[in-house]
Amino acid sequence: MEQKNWFEIHGSDADIAVSTRIRLARNVANIPFGSRQSAEDAEKVVSLCSSQLLENPVTQNVFTLKKSSSMSDAERVSLVERHLISPEFAKSTLPRALCLSEDEGIAVMINEEDHLRLQVIGSGLCINECLECAVRIDTLIDEGLTSHGAQYAFDETLGYLTHCPTNLGTGLRVSVMLHLPALAANGRLKALMNAAGRLGLAIRGYYGEGSREAGDLYQISNRITLGYTEKELCDNLNETVTQIIAEERAARKALLDADRLRMEDKVCRAHALLSSARLISADEAMGLLSDERLGISLKLLDGDIETINSLISEIQPATLCLNAAISAGAQERDETRAALLRKRLG
Amino acid sequence: MEQKNWFEIHGSDADIAVSTRIRLARNVANIPFGSRQSAEDAEKVVSLCSSQLLENPVTQNVFTLKKSSSMSDAERVSLVERHLISPEFAKSTLPRALCLSEDEGIAVMINEEDHLRLQVIGSGLCINECLECAVRIDTLIDEGLTSHGAQYAFDETLGYLTHCPTNLGTGLRVSVMLHLPALAANGRLKALMNAAGRLGLAIRGYYGEGSREAGDLYQISNRITLGYTEKELCDNLNETVTQIIAEERAARKALLDADRLRMEDKVCRAHALLSSARLISADEAMGLLSDERLGISLKLLDGDIETINSLISEIQPATLCLNAAISAGAQERDETRAALLRKRLG
Repeated sequence: MEQKNWFEIHGSDADIAVSTRIRLARNVANIPFGSRQSAEDAEKVVSLCSSQLLENPVTQNVFTLKKSSSMSDAERVSLVERHLISPEFAKSTLPRALCLSEDEGIAVMINEEDHLRLQVIGSGLCINECLECAVRIDTLIDEGLTSHGAQYAFDETLGYLTHCPTNLGTGLRVSVMLHLPALAANGRLKALMNAAGRLGLAIRGYYGEGSREAGDLYQISNRITLGYTEKELCDNLNETVTQIIAEERAARKALLDADRLRMEDKVCRAHALLSSARLISADEAMGLLSDERLGISLKLLDGDIETINSLISEIQPATLCLNAAISAGAQERDETRAALLRKRLG
Repeated sequence: MEQKNWFEIHGSDADIAVSTRIRLARNVANIPFGSRQSAEDAEKVVSLCSSQLLENPVTQNVFTLKKSSSMSDAERVSLVERHLISPEFAKSTLPRALCLSEDEGIAVMINEEDHLRLQVIGSGLCINECLECAVRIDTLIDEGLTSHGAQYAFDETLGYLTHCPTNLGTGLRVSVMLHLPALAANGRLKALMNAAGRLGLAIRGYYGEGSREAGDLYQISNRITLGYTEKELCDNLNETVTQIIAEERAARKALLDADRLRMEDKVCRAHALLSSARLISADEAMGLLSDERLGISLKLLDGDIETINSLISEIQPATLCLNAAISAGAQERDETRAALLRKRLG
């Protein structure tokens, strides 16, 4: 079973920028949120918010409602792996729901930490496009609430009120997933992480702290949400991301110039193993997919970057089991993963 | 440049027995040998012995004479790698020569430790066939010498006289190269080595002491040359080799039964790397060729065992450089080796 492509918005710099994500945190005024929320409150929020998307003619054919109570454990973990819901959302027992567009590019979590967490994802670097889309959905919900006599919790001075003060103001988190194998290899990444911190940004491993097992994938995002407009926060991130992309590109060129043959050897071996192994762990596959992605970007390998992007998500344990309809032990999972990779890359 | 195939005698059990080798040590009576040999003596031996092969109508089109003085260093090392001359032979400065059949199945070293070291090699397990061939050549030289008023140094009680007493009697060394990945993996090999010792036999790594870097190739040979007929010595070895082959085959089956998928994974990965790498060291290639050879034997991979046998010799450093006409640094050698493997296995 092929997974549906969740990239509807296509951005630039796909050799290095994997995806862009905008998240807006919103709450409905006069309904408690966070730990003060009762089951009844929660049910009311699910009903009120989901109906704005499901009953509005503009979006009613776009979204599907998935209630948390009707999700299997595997489905829940898979949604976490695909960053469509948060681990906290997956764990809760209160009424919760996810409104998901068919292409999975737009996800609205209802009753995570905040009443609403609206997320838009695009492929490549496409901050403005994602922001525009998020604002469009946000406006639509806002208007819908108003027409039902409700409204967002908003303060003229503080902006949007959120459960956690770190989200106060814009409620905006903008992040870009970057593939940085060369900056990870040449040791420059640590300095960049420190520099990003001074600019109010954070860089961290996307699939974990290890570099190679995590596919050399890093997420850069804003840490400040208050005191700037959405546009300013996005522009600030965009500027730094553009610089990092230029540095990564230069570092790749330097690696290639220093020893082209060794680089060719590395990416050819990665492709050979990915398209031949009969058993492969997620960690090994992530490292090899990073090499393969780098090889395609450098035109040392034929292949399609978006296939690799999709595989990175598809080979994660729960997503893999869900798609293959197996409830697997480690070896069966490694076998299924290897078969998937052979089929798609062989 | 493809290397000529040196396997003319084809034996049985090629899944495990790589090759069989018979060596006879002979000296010419009344000419000093070993350290007592003068350059003049040595020249006389080269001339007398080589002429028996080069002027006899039966063999004159079979052999080519290579004088040690006309060999390049690379050629000398390559002949050692292919076990056609000994390291001692390669090092000496006295007049020495090698009579080599075109297929390299028969090699006669003149003035190694003994005046004559006659060697016959066949593929697979073929002790009797190799012995017959060696005896035929030996008889031919013997008759030739007699017709020139010379004769082998022979004693009614001691048999053939040799430079080193460990070769006295028959002057026979019979050996079989075995591919024993499963017995090396399950730890049984050490016990077999001890048992072989008690039977007057020796088992040792063919390309070195490490198991995997040496391609899991082991040579088993007789340590006793005196007090038995050639036939008895050969039969004794044959019996033990046959037992070891049966044990290796059972161990392979046990490995396969225990986890067929893991075995498939291993051999598929080996084939993928051998047919894709752009740089590969001799050690790594030997390990992977061992896996590939095992995979072909177990019918997990398509392929030809004799191609693997030939590659094992062709990828050795000096042979590789000689065939590719490069005088290479390590990286150029690794590149040439990778190209050869891709071409032959890709």
